[in-house]
Amino acid sequence: MFDPIEKLKEYVRHPSVSADSKFKDGMAGAQQFLTGLLTGIGFNVEVVPTALHPVIVAKREGNANWPHVIIYGHYDVQPPDPLGQWQTQPFEPTIKGERIYGRGTADNKGPLMVHITAVGRLLEKNPQLPLNITFVIEGEEEIGSKNFKTFLKANKHRLNGDFIYMSDNGILTPDQMIVTVGLRGMIAFEIELTGPKMDLHSGMHGGVLMNPLQALAELCASLHTPDGRVNIPGFYKQVIEPEPWERAQLKKAGLKKDDYAKFLGISKFHTPPGYTPFEAIRFLPTLEFNGFSGGYQGEGTKTVIPSKASCKVTCRLVPNQTPDNVKDVIFNAIKKRCPKGVTMKITEQHKATPYVVIPPDRSNTPKNQSPALADCFRALEKAGTEVWGKPPIYLREGGSVGLLADLKEVLGLDAVMMGLFLPEDNLHAPNESFHLGVMKKGIETSERVLAALAKG
Amino acid sequence: MFDPIEKLKEYVRHPSVSADSKFKDGMAGAQQFLTGLLTGIGFNVEVVPTALHPVIVAKREGNANWPHVIIYGHYDVQPPDPLGQWQTQPFEPTIKGERIYGRGTADNKGPLMVHITAVGRLLEKNPQLPLNITFVIEGEEEIGSKNFKTFLKANKHRLNGDFIYMSDNGILTPDQMIVTVGLRGMIAFEIELTGPKMDLHSGMHGGVLMNPLQALAELCASLHTPDGRVNIPGFYKQVIEPEPWERAQLKKAGLKKDDYAKFLGISKFHTPPGYTPFEAIRFLPTLEFNGFSGGYQGEGTKTVIPSKASCKVTCRLVPNQTPDNVKDVIFNAIKKRCPKGVTMKITEQHKATPYVVIPPDRSNTPKNQSPALADCFRALEKAGTEVWGKPPIYLREGGSVGLLADLKEVLGLDAVMMGLFLPEDNLHAPNESFHLGVMKKGIETSERVLAALAKG
Repeated sequence: MFDPIEKLKEYVRHPSVSADSKFKDGMAGAQQFLTGLLTGIGFNVEVVPTALHPVIVAKREGNANWPHVIIYGHYDVQPPDPLGQWQTQPFEPTIKGERIYGRGTADNKGPLMVHITAVGRLLEKNPQLPLNITFVIEGEEEIGSKNFKTFLKANKHRLNGDFIYMSDNGILTPDQMIVTVGLRGMIAFEIELTGPKMDLHSGMHGGVLMNPLQALAELCASLHTPDGRVNIPGFYKQVIEPEPWERAQLKKAGLKKDDYAKFLGISKFHTPPGYTPFEAIRFLPTLEFNGFSGGYQGEGTKTVIPSKASCKVTCRLVPNQTPDNVKDVIFNAIKKRCPKGVTMKITEQHKATPYVVIPPDRSNTPKNQSPALADCFRALEKAGTEVWGKPPIYLREGGSVGLLADLKEVLGLDAVMMGLFLPEDNLHAPNESFHLGVMKKGIETSERVLAALAKG
Repeated sequence: MFDPIEKLKEYVRHPSVSADSKFKDGMAGAQQFLTGLLTGIGFNVEVVPTALHPVIVAKREGNANWPHVIIYGHYDVQPPDPLGQWQTQPFEPTIKGERIYGRGTADNKGPLMVHITAVGRLLEKNPQLPLNITFVIEGEEEIGSKNFKTFLKANKHRLNGDFIYMSDNGILTPDQMIVTVGLRGMIAFEIELTGPKMDLHSGMHGGVLMNPLQALAELCASLHTPDGRVNIPGFYKQVIEPEPWERAQLKKAGLKKDDYAKFLGISKFHTPPGYTPFEAIRFLPTLEFNGFSGGYQGEGTKTVIPSKASCKVTCRLVPNQTPDNVKDVIFNAIKKRCPKGVTMKITEQHKATPYVVIPPDRSNTPKNQSPALADCFRALEKAGTEVWGKPPIYLREGGSVGLLADLKEVLGLDAVMMGLFLPEDNLHAPNESFHLGVMKKGIETSERVLAALAKG
């Protein structure tokens, strides 16, 4: 059996940056590495082409009556820039203390190695393990999984598993296991306002027309109430209040407002009434401005009234909002408030449906929940408690992972998500690292989970 | 006597761009050209150094009892960029139709040539002309006349004239002379808001804190009333209502709102009640946003809550506002409205005091107006009416020329400003040109004005 840390080092040395075609050798190297590793533990591996980067599908097929787990991961990584801020080489994995440094160590090469190692160990102990396993490892997660839904549709017949099992999500401290049970959705758009047909001199023409920057300020200022809610009629209509068990789980995480404020560097939270900051992130939708532009932004002064001003907006969505059921509500309110004297263009960008999966035996568990999914949750609860010394906490997160809704929509499958990366792992940033203690516990937990699922 | 058009061509061929040290030969060339030209018509010329570009002081001194006119101009020009948009070479003057094209033809080489030619012709006809004349021609007007006030203070004893006479201002059509009798002042500043100590992921942290972009929108939206006035208590306190004669003069200009709206490309003006757009530009102060920045401004989406957001603001000021008497009013209101959850920094930038000069015999002419200044206004009214076929119109303008307040403050002198450039002359833009018909009328008018002022 291989050493997971040595194998992770080998894996990280392939610079598999999906966003930049300069790294195509790194992408191919990571594919070949995975093909070799998975073949070595007895899998049939296929590299399935897509419009851009292929998906690796690795199967261990036995009796059709055995449970069938689909393990999701991705082999692509974020670009390593800015290179100057790395203390080690991003593609030369380096162990310092209890961490391994390198691009992709935490997102997602280390966590995927956790599951491959667990599977390898189990199959070494019991080559007849009564469990069908399919690895689906994509190469475009860091660029929005653009071709993944098409891949799923085309390969649906080969992905007839019972549920998804994966670790592309986080924990809060190295000693508390977290199971992610939901992610917010998103709708992203850009608003562009046009006033005069050209940039104007603010001395020659100032004071006679609606300045598009002023119009933008007035429009944007109208989109929140003073207490921090989104000021759009109907925006909250589909929002489901969190169940008491969800708030209770969050309390168990023991998050401290003071610590969070210190981390953010703010003196004051700005959270809608009735929600702590930790609840607001997880249970409430948002409308956040991501960028303003217009006019002169260089040094000093330029006396210009710009022709155009624009802002980028993302709304995070929560169940049962969807990009489709809130889009018109948002866009209509914004159009209605377009200040007189300017014209408006709204451009839709990215979108993602919010995702939630309810563990078994909760107040809101669906009556028709898949028994295999419930088994996996129960196995994870038991294994996690044994290995980590206390039961996992079940939390929704504030970010968005659109592929979960795709998996649900195309394959009809829910996901059990075991968190493995820490806030200090610096995902998408210089000096990314993965905690070796968490890696070890992850492998042990995953091995126990998969052993428990195996039923002849 | 020289041919003014040939001399203007020679002058324009010196690329005297003050903003860019690459053009230092052009600056020196323009200085030498003027020295030669003015020496040739009998002036004593001195090139007076400053911290950057020298000022040319050329004197014709006779009897100390003669009137003494100081003619202001500047020999520096704007950079010619973007070069690709010129239809002729910017520093190779070219006559097409009734215009001469080239950088600086209108701003300010052509208008200065008008006055030099008028002086030259007068002195040729009457070498004993009883008039003291000083040309003060600076080289930093296009970069804010930074060293001009220091120059004035150091050379005050040599600039003991009766008034300033100049043409660095505009007319509206080639057949109507305009005398500029005021310019707005300015106070420019930048507001920077800081929220969290670093940029944040809007999924992980969205909905718990005041986004600096939102704070900027709320702050900026508070600074105007819906009817277009500046919403800062006390902002209008020092503003003097225009006299009926000023509104009447403006009406005589025959400006059409529809034409102006079409020029701007807007469907609707946004002017404070009681003022036409043409009045608002000239008689009211403003607060205009010149630029917003913060967050992501590139293509597509970036889910960021920025740490900082900022905006650039210029307020145009009118008599009797000054940068000093409105600064605290503006800054205090803005500071008071800083949204909770962000901190604010205000950085002062450029400033200029508004300038106004009242012609003689008006309802608000100062009782102690200099008789020499009144004589010049009267001479210009008479000469302008004769040459242009109708009386000049007296208008304030919306822009700011800080050096007028400096001349007034340091020398105690007011300025008589004969407009010579047209809206279509493309000042500061590619394909700058000067109208030869206006040039001819300007020379004739100026010659008559100076002749009328000469009193033994």
